[in-house]
Amino acid sequence: MGNRNLYLKTVSVEEALKKYIDRLNELGAIKNLTEIIKTEDSLSRITAKPIYANCNSPLFTASAMDGISVDSTLTKGASEETPIILSNTQYKVVDTGDPVKTPYDCVIMAEDVIDVGNGNVKIVSPVGSWENVRPIGEDIVEGEMVLLSNHKIKPIDIGALIASGNIEIECIKKLSVGVIPTGDEIINPKKKPEDGDIIDSNSYMLKSLLNEMDCNANRYDIVKDNYDLLKNAINLALAENDMVIINAGSSAGTEDFTVHVLRELGEVVVHGVSMKPGKPVIMAIVNNKPVIGLPGYPLSAYLAFDTFVKPVINMFYKIHTEKNDEITATASRIIVSSLKYREYVRVKVGKVHDKYVATPLDRGAASQMSMVRADGILIIPQNSEGVIASETVSVKLLKDKNYIDNTLVSIGSHDILLDFVSDLMNKKFNDVHFQSTHVGSLAGLMALKRGETIIAPTHLLNEENGIYNIDILKELFMDEVDENGKNLSISLIKGFKRIQGIVVRNGNPKNIKGIKDLINCKFVNRQRGSGTRVLFDYLLKKENIDSSKIYGYDKELTTHMAICAAVKSGEVDCGIAIKSVANVMKLDFIEIGSEEYDFAIRTKDLDDIKIKKFIEVIRSNELKNKLDEVGGYGYYDDLNIIKVL
Amino acid sequence: MGNRNLYLKTVSVEEALKKYIDRLNELGAIKNLTEIIKTEDSLSRITAKPIYANCNSPLFTASAMDGISVDSTLTKGASEETPIILSNTQYKVVDTGDPVKTPYDCVIMAEDVIDVGNGNVKIVSPVGSWENVRPIGEDIVEGEMVLLSNHKIKPIDIGALIASGNIEIECIKKLSVGVIPTGDEIINPKKKPEDGDIIDSNSYMLKSLLNEMDCNANRYDIVKDNYDLLKNAINLALAENDMVIINAGSSAGTEDFTVHVLRELGEVVVHGVSMKPGKPVIMAIVNNKPVIGLPGYPLSAYLAFDTFVKPVINMFYKIHTEKNDEITATASRIIVSSLKYREYVRVKVGKVHDKYVATPLDRGAASQMSMVRADGILIIPQNSEGVIASETVSVKLLKDKNYIDNTLVSIGSHDILLDFVSDLMNKKFNDVHFQSTHVGSLAGLMALKRGETIIAPTHLLNEENGIYNIDILKELFMDEVDENGKNLSISLIKGFKRIQGIVVRNGNPKNIKGIKDLINCKFVNRQRGSGTRVLFDYLLKKENIDSSKIYGYDKELTTHMAICAAVKSGEVDCGIAIKSVANVMKLDFIEIGSEEYDFAIRTKDLDDIKIKKFIEVIRSNELKNKLDEVGGYGYYDDLNIIKVL
Repeated sequence: MGNRNLYLKTVSVEEALKKYIDRLNELGAIKNLTEIIKTEDSLSRITAKPIYANCNSPLFTASAMDGISVDSTLTKGASEETPIILSNTQYKVVDTGDPVKTPYDCVIMAEDVIDVGNGNVKIVSPVGSWENVRPIGEDIVEGEMVLLSNHKIKPIDIGALIASGNIEIECIKKLSVGVIPTGDEIINPKKKPEDGDIIDSNSYMLKSLLNEMDCNANRYDIVKDNYDLLKNAINLALAENDMVIINAGSSAGTEDFTVHVLRELGEVVVHGVSMKPGKPVIMAIVNNKPVIGLPGYPLSAYLAFDTFVKPVINMFYKIHTEKNDEITATASRIIVSSLKYREYVRVKVGKVHDKYVATPLDRGAASQMSMVRADGILIIPQNSEGVIASETVSVKLLKDKNYIDNTLVSIGSHDILLDFVSDLMNKKFNDVHFQSTHVGSLAGLMALKRGETIIAPTHLLNEENGIYNIDILKELFMDEVDENGKNLSISLIKGFKRIQGIVVRNGNPKNIKGIKDLINCKFVNRQRGSGTRVLFDYLLKKENIDSSKIYGYDKELTTHMAICAAVKSGEVDCGIAIKSVANVMKLDFIEIGSEEYDFAIRTKDLDDIKIKKFIEVIRSNELKNKLDEVGGYGYYDDLNIIKVL
Repeated sequence: MGNRNLYLKTVSVEEALKKYIDRLNELGAIKNLTEIIKTEDSLSRITAKPIYANCNSPLFTASAMDGISVDSTLTKGASEETPIILSNTQYKVVDTGDPVKTPYDCVIMAEDVIDVGNGNVKIVSPVGSWENVRPIGEDIVEGEMVLLSNHKIKPIDIGALIASGNIEIECIKKLSVGVIPTGDEIINPKKKPEDGDIIDSNSYMLKSLLNEMDCNANRYDIVKDNYDLLKNAINLALAENDMVIINAGSSAGTEDFTVHVLRELGEVVVHGVSMKPGKPVIMAIVNNKPVIGLPGYPLSAYLAFDTFVKPVINMFYKIHTEKNDEITATASRIIVSSLKYREYVRVKVGKVHDKYVATPLDRGAASQMSMVRADGILIIPQNSEGVIASETVSVKLLKDKNYIDNTLVSIGSHDILLDFVSDLMNKKFNDVHFQSTHVGSLAGLMALKRGETIIAPTHLLNEENGIYNIDILKELFMDEVDENGKNLSISLIKGFKRIQGIVVRNGNPKNIKGIKDLINCKFVNRQRGSGTRVLFDYLLKKENIDSSKIYGYDKELTTHMAICAAVKSGEVDCGIAIKSVANVMKLDFIEIGSEEYDFAIRTKDLDDIKIKKFIEVIRSNELKNKLDEVGGYGYYDDLNIIKVL
């Protein structure tokens, strides 16, 4: 165990952050530096002090209409009977916006002025002081406070600052943050990867997170796992920045030098936090500047940044860390969590009949896509064992609530055509979206039954009669009746025919001709409950093949794409998938059957505007063209909706 | 009326926007141009098409732990009784993250491997295929859709794009928008203004609004009111941009050439919309590009931009125009509006005992500060006469709801110390804020009574006994009793003593020594209900002065600063204001009395955390130092809270 960095004791998220911030404050490591910048470039910057008006706005008392400016005292007593004549030295013609200057203190509307010749005018009613004028400083008075300290500048503020004579202002200096990617296996994105390489994507994600927070982010070259190289890199970054982020090398492995280097250079305040993902975080202070080591998995790095780096940056900026909007949702499945950690579960959030449903995505710390796809984060507190299905939970939203409200939810079988549908929905309409979660046909129908999805894509074969989807829907929904004992109606939107088959590497090196040949190969299976698995087991039975003879029958993957990736990499020889995915991934394909991929839905939802747009998309020429390009699909001539119950 | 641009007919906001967008679409004037950009620079850009993974992530099947990789078939049947020995050609030592390659298909944990010498190891249990590995493409499969079309790119997306081999991506091109400020009276902010000049602040505000929407904004030099100059400027801007904004010259005045030039160059689709502010907007199409003329008042320009320019830009970007969050609030006063317009009323929104109260700000189109100070916009539809006090209204928020929830509301008398308090609250705490609306002492107490404010700053004198604030509070709140007939308790937080007096220009040119001398001057008064007015009227009565003898007694302004600005400009000779404001504005001052400026509050609210922080600020040394710097204030030694009822 020689060089291992044992976490002596991991602390809770709150403790860790408090400990670090207290220590930063104690050492005076948070410096609120300021700089003078041009007001026109100050959008989203933070004011360093209150800003006062340097001039009035309007700059002068101005006429509010077209007419003549006069001294109001000269108009006293004017009436039809006792008109007053003003000579051309006693008034001045003004347009709206023109200055009204002493001795003049009011304006008489052009319509009320009678020209009596020789430049003289007749007035038949008196005018009060300041009548029909906009007084000087009506909007902004010189010396008035225009903006407070620690205010984030908006476009309207920039207008008011310039109108009040502030062409330069003092703002909090932009924070410079150095980002150091580390690791022997890490390569630059432009380099062609070899086996064992990992593309450095984290440093670019971190740079964007920093840019989003109005920091100057400086990415450094990748540093190999070497004590001295790392030490030099940290020293250089510290000299050039206000704060440094190191990624990764923060865990307890033999080649994780970061914590040792930081201990030599400064003080490690926290190493290891009870959160998941994100545990191996390091919070240190070197040369009186914050240095934070983030874990290597993208998702862990992201969550640790959000949890620890963001609040520290906001201390420099003296602004409050905004909380994400939260909504109350129903958990669609049980989520078991450890008592030892605060767990951040990425969830899809769908609005189904006025309730929000949260469905957990892949929970591995390595799953970057789970964060890309997530609509929100469900936090399971430390000391909680998780949530049970149907439990009400609070979800921190990562997307606009409006976007979620306008998204059609689909849970069920996987097909790449759902991605094309999603894309076309976004392209054709900017107010309705489509999201799908892939759990297999049967699990999708169960979600439909529990009210957790609007549509459920399905391709489930009745082995007895060869009919797809109808019988299983009847079986599952038969017990649903209203108060009169009448069935709650369920329908099937007929979707597409698609070709299933055996995927093999180019040239079919194992010479597979049908499922009988699978016993001589390394195979990878789909999960139970998926339509593809049902079809495969049906065919095995039909051909009397003993599944235990098939090497890899027990190894399950959950999507067609994952099956194809495994075949392509050479790790397995074959798997069952749809033709379109084999085509996309440029693999050879042996057809074993055609099936019907349809969408189950409650009949009452057919009127939903989102469903109408969905149907428009699945019957569109754009989708047909895309599917023809990909291959492996068949179409129905008409829109075909079957009322099943 | 020669050259006047009569609006033939103004159209409603919806009609105008629909008409313009339909025409833009008809002419194909909305072009969704795309460009290839570096992924690392793509934050907040919009994808032009779906983006697919160019490689798997992980790139290879990787070990999930430290151990040895082996061919799982060789471990079949291994047990304590029948261990299997593997030679050093039959396994490979791997660390976590190392590749696991054919013929190896699984990993045995280091702890389960027994070294038996000569490089041989003993295995005592079988391992399944793919056990303890992360399969290739577990996170992202080559060919998988990573992002949809028309998706706004986030930091986590940038990570996933780079990890999936997308170092460049196709995005919708940034829109270039030209901004042309126009007008003979408009000057560059750097120029020293002369009488009649108006500083061009709008073009900078518009530039920031465009930058905020991820457009490239090109500001052009100010164009004089001249037909040919304007025509040339528009042609130049059109040649260099995708869209042009002209500000102003869009109304119907004699020097408003914009609409004539646009009619010559292209097609004017809309001129004049029934909205207030913002009516004189022009929507045109020239050279198949949108050209929009915005009104000159900053607020009108802002609202017309938000209403008409934003949706057009979002069409170029193919994204949905996000709606502001809305809250339900109670209107604190009657707001009368015209049937002819949709009116956009700027409001302050305060949370008072779990209800939101919306208080309208200055409604003039010229009031830029009303927008800077606004928390939200209350839209009064066309064909509505307005809202009545206590009516429930919907307010579009301009600030974060969280910010509003954490803001202490004050309505009442004006003092610049409230700005200092506001600023210090922001500086000392980043989670509690302070906002004040200035309506005078009495109106503030009435707002407190109606439950529209938490505190009410007041300085109301009882002329009979010379006592401040106590008696009026008793009088106003005496009738408030609970079900047992007990008074609802009201308290007074003693605030500051302050010096009132007569403000005059430097050197006191009219030689004013006291209020008796005001009859020889031009005076400006404070509004009825303000404490200053009560004091002034009391002193007039005491000295037996006939108010009708004072020139300007009827002319009212609502703040100390406005009074001082009027005196300083020379438009009036004197007014009544507090010493601190006279000092700030560098005016001479003749003391007429000292008064007590306190804060009325319901006793139960004294426990509110916001009040505790407010009290911390008003008793802080920072505030004391600031007030000493300004002058004109006296302090109480201790925190002094009087239970009045």
